[in-house]
Amino acid sequence: MPFRFGHMLGIEPLSAEEILFLLDQSKPFQEIQRHPLKKLATLRGKTVALAFFEPSTRTRISFATAAARLGADQMNLQAESSSLKKGESLLDTVRTLDAMKPDCIVMRHSSSGAPDFVARNLPLPVINAGDGTHEHPTQGLLDAFTIREKRGRIEGLRVAIVGDIAHSRVARSNIWALTKLGAEVTVAGPPTMMPAQVERFGVTVAKSVDEALEGADVVNVLRIQLERQRATLYSSLREYSRVYGVDAERLRRAKPDVTVMHPGPMNRGVEIAQDVADGVHSVILEQVTNGVAVRMAVLYLLAGREASAEPGGETPTPGAKRSHVESTVSPRR
Amino acid sequence: MPFRFGHMLGIEPLSAEEILFLLDQSKPFQEIQRHPLKKLATLRGKTVALAFFEPSTRTRISFATAAARLGADQMNLQAESSSLKKGESLLDTVRTLDAMKPDCIVMRHSSSGAPDFVARNLPLPVINAGDGTHEHPTQGLLDAFTIREKRGRIEGLRVAIVGDIAHSRVARSNIWALTKLGAEVTVAGPPTMMPAQVERFGVTVAKSVDEALEGADVVNVLRIQLERQRATLYSSLREYSRVYGVDAERLRRAKPDVTVMHPGPMNRGVEIAQDVADGVHSVILEQVTNGVAVRMAVLYLLAGREASAEPGGETPTPGAKRSHVESTVSPRR
Amino acid sequence: MPFRFGHMLGIEPLSAEEILFLLDQSKPFQEIQRHPLKKLATLRGKTVALAFFEPSTRTRISFATAAARLGADQMNLQAESSSLKKGESLLDTVRTLDAMKPDCIVMRHSSSGAPDFVARNLPLPVINAGDGTHEHPTQGLLDAFTIREKRGRIEGLRVAIVGDIAHSRVARSNIWALTKLGAEVTVAGPPTMMPAQVERFGVTVAKSVDEALEGADVVNVLRIQLERQRATLYSSLREYSRVYGVDAERLRRAKPDVTVMHPGPMNRGVEIAQDVADGVHSVILEQVTNGVAVRMAVLYLLAGREASAEPGGETPTPGAKRSHVESTVSPRR
Repeated sequence: MPFRFGHMLGIEPLSAEEILFLLDQSKPFQEIQRHPLKKLATLRGKTVALAFFEPSTRTRISFATAAARLGADQMNLQAESSSLKKGESLLDTVRTLDAMKPDCIVMRHSSSGAPDFVARNLPLPVINAGDGTHEHPTQGLLDAFTIREKRGRIEGLRVAIVGDIAHSRVARSNIWALTKLGAEVTVAGPPTMMPAQVERFGVTVAKSVDEALEGADVVNVLRIQLERQRATLYSSLREYSRVYGVDAERLRRAKPDVTVMHPGPMNRGVEIAQDVADGVHSVILEQVTNGVAVRMAVLYLLAGREASAEPGGETPTPGAKRSHVESTVSPRR
Repeated sequence: MPFRFGHMLGIEPLSAEEILFLLDQSKPFQEIQRHPLKKLATLRGKTVALAFFEPSTRTRISFATAAARLGADQMNLQAESSSLKKGESLLDTVRTLDAMKPDCIVMRHSSSGAPDFVARNLPLPVINAGDGTHEHPTQGLLDAFTIREKRGRIEGLRVAIVGDIAHSRVARSNIWALTKLGAEVTVAGPPTMMPAQVERFGVTVAKSVDEALEGADVVNVLRIQLERQRATLYSSLREYSRVYGVDAERLRRAKPDVTVMHPGPMNRGVEIAQDVADGVHSVILEQVTNGVAVRMAVLYLLAGREASAEPGGETPTPGAKRSHVESTVSPRR
Repeated sequence: MPFRFGHMLGIEPLSAEEILFLLDQSKPFQEIQRHPLKKLATLRGKTVALAFFEPSTRTRISFATAAARLGADQMNLQAESSSLKKGESLLDTVRTLDAMKPDCIVMRHSSSGAPDFVARNLPLPVINAGDGTHEHPTQGLLDAFTIREKRGRIEGLRVAIVGDIAHSRVARSNIWALTKLGAEVTVAGPPTMMPAQVERFGVTVAKSVDEALEGADVVNVLRIQLERQRATLYSSLREYSRVYGVDAERLRRAKPDVTVMHPGPMNRGVEIAQDVADGVHSVILEQVTNGVAVRMAVLYLLAGREASAEPGGETPTPGAKRSHVESTVSPRR
């Protein structure tokens, strides 16, 4: 089943089959990461525009590395130096980038919905690299990919997501991906960080982190955004750590072979204890490696197509694509 | 007629024949922008130094994209992180770059004449990417290129340039290019934004924007630099828009098929109305696309030569060059 | 004698043979800098991570240019936009980079010992691009390389290093390299800028700059870091210049063919006079050119090996390596 969409705006609109297709597509790119030479010529002659209207290190470097390993050139726009300072609208900024003929735009923005807005107005494939508190779909995919690699499947797994659910686009993309693929997702966190009617996402709300961890196959610990919430949403870091932090003792309630995840950057000793972050159950660094693979797959699917998508449209990719990726996934020497 | 110069410092020193040669050279590079694969190997093994001592988004990305599509590597220096902060002189900074053996330097600087100064002191080809209120020659070329594409010719056209003429290097490079190529250029704008003795540039000064637009083939609307002039040079934005803004009603005075241009970034609703910016006459995004093509041509001509220019000298390019560009302008697969 | 180390953390741990091996390795890369096409395919498919936790222009561009000329891709992390702002530890930041599978990390940090710390904890080859007041080993190598190019040898030469010895990692790496290679090194500078027991580095302390220059083959003038020390460590710039500045008159005490060096950026008229900086004895720009060559050699040796070094370990490079570099050092067309 090929990928129907001309954009990657979120996990919510995808079907389970489409998510699985993306995970399958990512697999050969994951294998590339282990090769001594990781460079493909797949997107040679293509250009990936990286438009980060919000600061980012790891996601920006991950997409840039993915683009480079596919052989693509890059256009780099970072908010600090952008024309936005000169009063230009978001749409004019991205239209200007588009007029330089990149083959897709990877976009991060502090406003939820900004990538959708751009996708509706431009003929260019748009990849959401995180928008406000809405979605961070490649994070959702890389987390699902990592879980499947580690546990062999996603269906039927018990996954606990712990922390600031309300403000986390990572949580939202994870919830969509995992519930669609048949996992039982339980969330836990401070009441002030829990979205109203969170059950409508198809998750169970636990009364405590302990309850969420009970029998869990996977625990995904969210980052507390210290820079945003200090002193408002919870009384103190120590208090947060005591009540919501995932430490070795608390982790004993989970399955003995529980998989521990964190999207990074970590606040060690706050939401996650040192020994858990570095423990045998942690796949936190594998998530980072898999992130490059998943982003290579998404860039390949969206920037590699021959004709651009129609504005707002959904351009089916020919089935032939898939065999193409498999045949090109060998390092170029 | 080949290009006589070892640098691209401004349009003023160029002859009409040279400008036309540059526009002709840009044409095959414009066609490249429509290819699915836009990568050439023309400058493979060459390095383009991008030294932006003044913030820039679109011009920097345009040059970087042009360099990448020619296969060149890049050196990136941006003022924020530069040694200038450590008290180093401009000349020492660019000499240091030069010692790392780039094949040309693309330079933006807030001081008029800075690129000329560098060109006189270094053996490296210098491309002016905007210096103070002096010139922005590749903008002048891309505007002339866009006009010729749209109207079939430049000679005899009536071109109105509207806005802050005094502080605009875009205006200056446009005026030089268009008057040399035989256009009749009329300028209009607030008296405080009109250079003394502007007629010496070979242009007509209109008493109003309405008068400048009368029968115009082309109108080039300049950006009001809000960040610089607020409250000093004109009373208010609304007032500016009412008296000098180009809107649909005012545009009716121009030829029915008038071509509307703007160098960007636009202040929509100030110097240009929404419906004019997005209207059928607007070629604003084509300007951006053509900018990459014109910059590819200039980089090709200056960074592609076998030996560096002598400091301050004018090194004729062998005529053989021209056939070389034409033969290499096919995407590499 | 091949290079024993999996990292390039400093000159101090290297033997004279190893330093000479590195200088020999740099020679073919220096020749590349004179070719019209400087691009090799040596590190094609490899990735060099550039992690600058302290601002840098010349060193960053020099390493980036070296990586590009070897055909490597780059990951760019600069402190300003890094996750460190979000409270992440240094080790987590570099571990995250490492998880994206670069082949080495080039690292600058304001804390002495930070690269050693990273090298002890990660399996990735670490290249120190300057750490606090500790070492800047590629600067030490490029200075030794430049001296050997200019004077034909290092052993037995009289080298004066003048300025702020105490706070200069450049001084420290130079002293290690030159004393190990048999030069007689004399240092001179303000008493407040002289390390306690500086003789333990195997150097002679001169009572004045004049004394240090007496009969010198080479004088290396260090940068006064105006941004750090103004008004604290010396009374005034003019006073500094008068007592410690290297000018033409003072230089007459050195050998007639003395070689003048400066790591840049220069404060002209402070630590070095205009006519000395630009005089016939100056090799300051050659240092910059050689810097790219030396860094290509170091990147080649550390990022080009087939298997990563063990954390903290010393992985011997097979002798076959050396012939490989020589066979690949021809520009790729």
